[in-house]
Amino acid sequence: MDEILAVAYDDVVAARGRISGAARRTPVLTSATADALAGGTLLFKGENFQRAGAFKFRGAFNALSRFTGEQKAAGVVTFSSGNHAQAVALSAKLLGIRAVIVMPGDAPAAKVAATRGYGAEIQFYDRYTEVREELGAKLAAEQGLTLVPPYDHPDVMAGQGTCAAELFEDAGPPDLLLIPLGGGGLLSGCAVAAHALCPDCEIYGVEPEAGDDGRQSFRSGRIVTVKTPQTIADGAQTTHLGRFTFPVIRALVKDILTVTDAELAQAMRFFAERMKIVVEPTGCLAAAAVFAGRLDLAGRRAGIILSGGNVDLEKYAGLIC
Amino acid sequence: MDEILAVAYDDVVAARGRISGAARRTPVLTSATADALAGGTLLFKGENFQRAGAFKFRGAFNALSRFTGEQKAAGVVTFSSGNHAQAVALSAKLLGIRAVIVMPGDAPAAKVAATRGYGAEIQFYDRYTEVREELGAKLAAEQGLTLVPPYDHPDVMAGQGTCAAELFEDAGPPDLLLIPLGGGGLLSGCAVAAHALCPDCEIYGVEPEAGDDGRQSFRSGRIVTVKTPQTIADGAQTTHLGRFTFPVIRALVKDILTVTDAELAQAMRFFAERMKIVVEPTGCLAAAAVFAGRLDLAGRRAGIILSGGNVDLEKYAGLIC
Repeated sequence: MDEILAVAYDDVVAARGRISGAARRTPVLTSATADALAGGTLLFKGENFQRAGAFKFRGAFNALSRFTGEQKAAGVVTFSSGNHAQAVALSAKLLGIRAVIVMPGDAPAAKVAATRGYGAEIQFYDRYTEVREELGAKLAAEQGLTLVPPYDHPDVMAGQGTCAAELFEDAGPPDLLLIPLGGGGLLSGCAVAAHALCPDCEIYGVEPEAGDDGRQSFRSGRIVTVKTPQTIADGAQTTHLGRFTFPVIRALVKDILTVTDAELAQAMRFFAERMKIVVEPTGCLAAAAVFAGRLDLAGRRAGIILSGGNVDLEKYAGLIC
Repeated sequence: MDEILAVAYDDVVAARGRISGAARRTPVLTSATADALAGGTLLFKGENFQRAGAFKFRGAFNALSRFTGEQKAAGVVTFSSGNHAQAVALSAKLLGIRAVIVMPGDAPAAKVAATRGYGAEIQFYDRYTEVREELGAKLAAEQGLTLVPPYDHPDVMAGQGTCAAELFEDAGPPDLLLIPLGGGGLLSGCAVAAHALCPDCEIYGVEPEAGDDGRQSFRSGRIVTVKTPQTIADGAQTTHLGRFTFPVIRALVKDILTVTDAELAQAMRFFAERMKIVVEPTGCLAAAAVFAGRLDLAGRRAGIILSGGNVDLEKYAGLIC
């Protein structure tokens, strides 16, 4: 706990100031039926209602807001075919910065169109012959672009932490906080905020059972890399935690839980049927853990982050019925 | 306009007092993408987030709250296989009143279970040999129950009007107000509230093209009855306006618009994909009219009531992809 972490609570506070007015203050949702199902009081932070459909906007906008004039003039590059790509594209548009997004040539047309819709340039790569990190680094070097990676960056992490800070402010400090876990940007940022604002709150990360690198890393004390996990939680198909996110998680998180794809689909159905909201599979990770009874919530209040709502409608329809 | 209508604004104000604390104050949702699509500013009142999943709770709770001690002791009866049934069942449970719901023997198991889940007794009838209104009246007479019909009742209408009153309070008075139309309970109640709170606001009802009895009635000046319309908007499969709702609609509404099932499905997809909310087909009526360009909204603010979110997940999945 004496280790110097990449993000401090002051960074989260500064991020709140930067994203204020640009990001949505998303609602805290409650449901008596969900409480009955989980056996406790659940406070859902609806990041599916965030701009561009996921919490990623917070971190991206915070990172881009900190660019120097020179960086702003040159532009930003990132590699992602998911929510981070759209978050960077929208943030860049709002801040008047050129954005280049490295995407696989076979990325879904809807995602390419959405990213282009925010005014970003797409740089396709062949996922069988090229490595996206190398292409991103090459573009950055050649064109003077600043690389903003999806999670392992202090400004990205601090931005994501604003999500938990808002939750505590709007709903009061919970006894537990459960957060979806992929590369650890959201979990680490929120853990820093929680540690400062409600130090007694137990913090849990929840990842797909098929990709439990987070739990393995947490328990072994070193970053474990797994093969790309096969899971419907496409936002958590990361293979390893980051060099900045891991130390924060190790220091502040109580445990890492896992859920199955079937449990995720069941949570998606619950949200559609009973709460009338669309939550993507990755966004259901934390909720699925409480619905599946992974923790005893009797008499306790649990903050649950619903991290996003971006899911192809055809895929969604197949999962909810 | 000099005609004495069944509901006055004072009734809506009184209803607000009665439902306060029991009904949810539902959110007003906005979307830059929706605005761009419609060419104006849209203010969506999210009654899909209302208790029991639809605006119906407002009217039912208001009506049951006005029961005398004797009426409360005897109980309530209604006939509905839809949102009104669950609204009456939940209201009765909250107020400690016995509820009997007349439903067809072939009603979907999920709806029967949900209604029973609120503690109501179900009285099945054979839709081919029995008339539900007669059975309801018989039960009322035999057991001293009070009948609360789904829309044609002043207390129900006044309760539904609270929805528009909240919208104006939270979002300011709009230039237009568009409201789903079945039997006219929601439209008439909201029209009374709008007429008092923003007299210059143009009020439109929107019904399924396949069941345009409302438009025919509005234009001919007498209640026109049609055959049960074939439409995915199951909450608007009413065959005629009511004797209380029609005079209010004729006096205060500017026009009745219609939309097709394809336009409803398109709106449902928009809400799922872009706004991350589940809206049932009937709940999309008003929104579908603006997305389909039925009115010129340039430079104008339109209040749009999303009346509910109760839709069988299998049916929903089939409609959104």
